Amino acid sequence: MISDKVIKRFLQYRICLIKFQRLGFEKVFSYNLGEEVGVTPEQVRKDFSYFGIKGNRKGGYEIEKLLKSISEIFKIDENRNIIIMGMGNIGKALANYKGFPENKIFIVAAFDLDPAKYTKKFNIPVYHPDKMDKIVKKHNVRTAIIAVPEFAGQEVCDKLVALGIKGILNFSPVILRVPDDVYVNNVNLRSEIESLFYYI
Amino acid sequence: MISDKVIKRFLQYRICLIKFQRLGFEKVFSYNLGEEVGVTPEQVRKDFSYFGIKGNRKGGYEIEKLLKSISEIFKIDENRNIIIMGMGNIGKALANYKGFPENKIFIVAAFDLDPAKYTKKFNIPVYHPDKMDKIVKKHNVRTAIIAVPEFAGQEVCDKLVALGIKGILNFSPVILRVPDDVYVNNVNLRSEIESLFYYI
Repeated sequence: MISDKVIKRFLQYRICLIKFQRLGFEKVFSYNLGEEVGVTPEQVRKDFSYFGIKGNRKGGYEIEKLLKSISEIFKIDENRNIIIMGMGNIGKALANYKGFPENKIFIVAAFDLDPAKYTKKFNIPVYHPDKMDKIVKKHNVRTAIIAVPEFAGQEVCDKLVALGIKGILNFSPVILRVPDDVYVNNVNLRSEIESLFYYI
Repeated sequence: MISDKVIKRFLQYRICLIKFQRLGFEKVFSYNLGEEVGVTPEQVRKDFSYFGIKGNRKGGYEIEKLLKSISEIFKIDENRNIIIMGMGNIGKALANYKGFPENKIFIVAAFDLDPAKYTKKFNIPVYHPDKMDKIVKKHNVRTAIIAVPEFAGQEVCDKLVALGIKGILNFSPVILRVPDDVYVNNVNLRSEIESLFYYI
């Protein structure tokens, strides 16, 4: 099992590679990437080797090929449909976040209990949760974002798991209980800020 | 130096402790906390020992005292003023996020180049960046959130560092270069979602 840290570094390498490509470069060395991401060139080569990606000592890596390999690893050309649970402040921000469609991540719908949210003013359709089943099946959704208040977090999570969701990005400040085959990434905005207070 | 993981676990312990307190409990055992946070009781005790927090083998920990210790570690009763750079989707969501004031985190102002954002419709005042200096000094701000587009991330970061900001929560998908005494927490929404596609 490849660690979460390696996975996230790969996504950082990808951001750098796109930047280099925009600047007109065709090749890149492990030290270029290492410098950008803040790791050693050895670490970059080690990370690449996990996925069988090999460079050329003298010539470095071809950016085009590297990007293609990373796209395959992260299934960038496959189904990347997601849904959002909860259209509060966070849900709304994500619905409008340009970084998703620009990277072929498609929010197919959001769900909220409040009928006032079922308007056309958002970029995505918003439905009552009783439509979850239909939408998830129709768009073959496997990934969801939880952006509901704390008290509803686990209940919403259980519903998602029952519908076959396997990946959850959780903004609700609860520690979700999920089966072993479901993967959760937590973003706790409060903790992210509070840990800074500790360091400064 | 205590690791980032330990720090973030402490903030999770705090969430659990507040929950237990609301449920009427006065004492807690390391296995209760471990179960909630997903670590072993040994890990909980080890984490507490870093900060000299001791329990009682038979009686466990007093919740009230534990919360007080954690408050001291995270300076919860001190200055927790922050500013937001950028009032796009993410900035607006954070400005309205109830989890901040509920935890004594105060957003004193936001900054944006777009004059259309200088309205009173947000919960916080929004100014042109040329007012940063004044506001940071007035409220003794040491912590900031960067929620500007990618191309502006490093420039905004440099301005913050020049004004004495020591802790940054960065939503901009760039790897920021900062001096050694500045601490950065990165939240890359795109990467958080994309790493899920890898696992599922």
